[in-house]
Amino acid sequence: MADFNTLATQFTQFYYETFDTDRSQLSTLYRDESMLSFEGAQLLGAKNIVEKLVSLPFQRVQHRISTLDAQPSGANGSVVVMVTGELLLDEEQIAQRYSQVFHLVNNAGNYFVLNDLFRLNYG
Amino acid sequence: MADFNTLATQFTQFYYETFDTDRSQLSTLYRDESMLSFEGAQLLGAKNIVEKLVSLPFQRVQHRISTLDAQPSGANGSVVVMVTGELLLDEEQIAQRYSQVFHLVNNAGNYFVLNDLFRLNYG
Repeated sequence: MADFNTLATQFTQFYYETFDTDRSQLSTLYRDESMLSFEGAQLLGAKNIVEKLVSLPFQRVQHRISTLDAQPSGANGSVVVMVTGELLLDEEQIAQRYSQVFHLVNNAGNYFVLNDLFRLNYG
Repeated sequence: MADFNTLATQFTQFYYETFDTDRSQLSTLYRDESMLSFEGAQLLGAKNIVEKLVSLPFQRVQHRISTLDAQPSGANGSVVVMVTGELLLDEEQIAQRYSQVFHLVNNAGNYFVLNDLFRLNYG
């Protein structure tokens, strides 16, 4: 069960490093059929998804992964990933907890994010 | 976008009602290829999954859904669901927060849980 765990770990590290450095660059990970549910808002397509992410009202963000679980999601190498973690915005001292799901779909050896679901965890 | 949201809501309500009433009955929702990641433990197949759930060290549990997000996960009517919620165990007064993902796969009109990922959210 190494391959999908490795894929999930490497993807997630790359995703958050890109998000935290320059989130406008995330568009390469989505396609026209990709979906994002972000705190109840629903976006379809790479362009709309990245516009939403870029428009979020913070300048700096730092994601920290607490847990990562992955499973194969079908016959063609697709993988479902659930992350729980913390994020720190701008000058804030207290991290916010979140949960995020990525469904990574294998298209001829290239993976893209078909499903992305994000929620802050209010405690 | 009503159908997959309705499916996700109805499934999730049924799942937690069954879990909280008699979790041994959940076996009908899983199949041999179903996977459960539960707090890092990995189980494969309906029998192993339900044995794990039945063996959890509490008598009574009550799930409460805080947020539910759903998206179609492919061409054949499959749906990915992310739930955040709270659960109350036995005589405890303080609920524990959790995140859970269900990947519901459509097999000739009958849905089963292919992927189930569960984590408590420690604060």
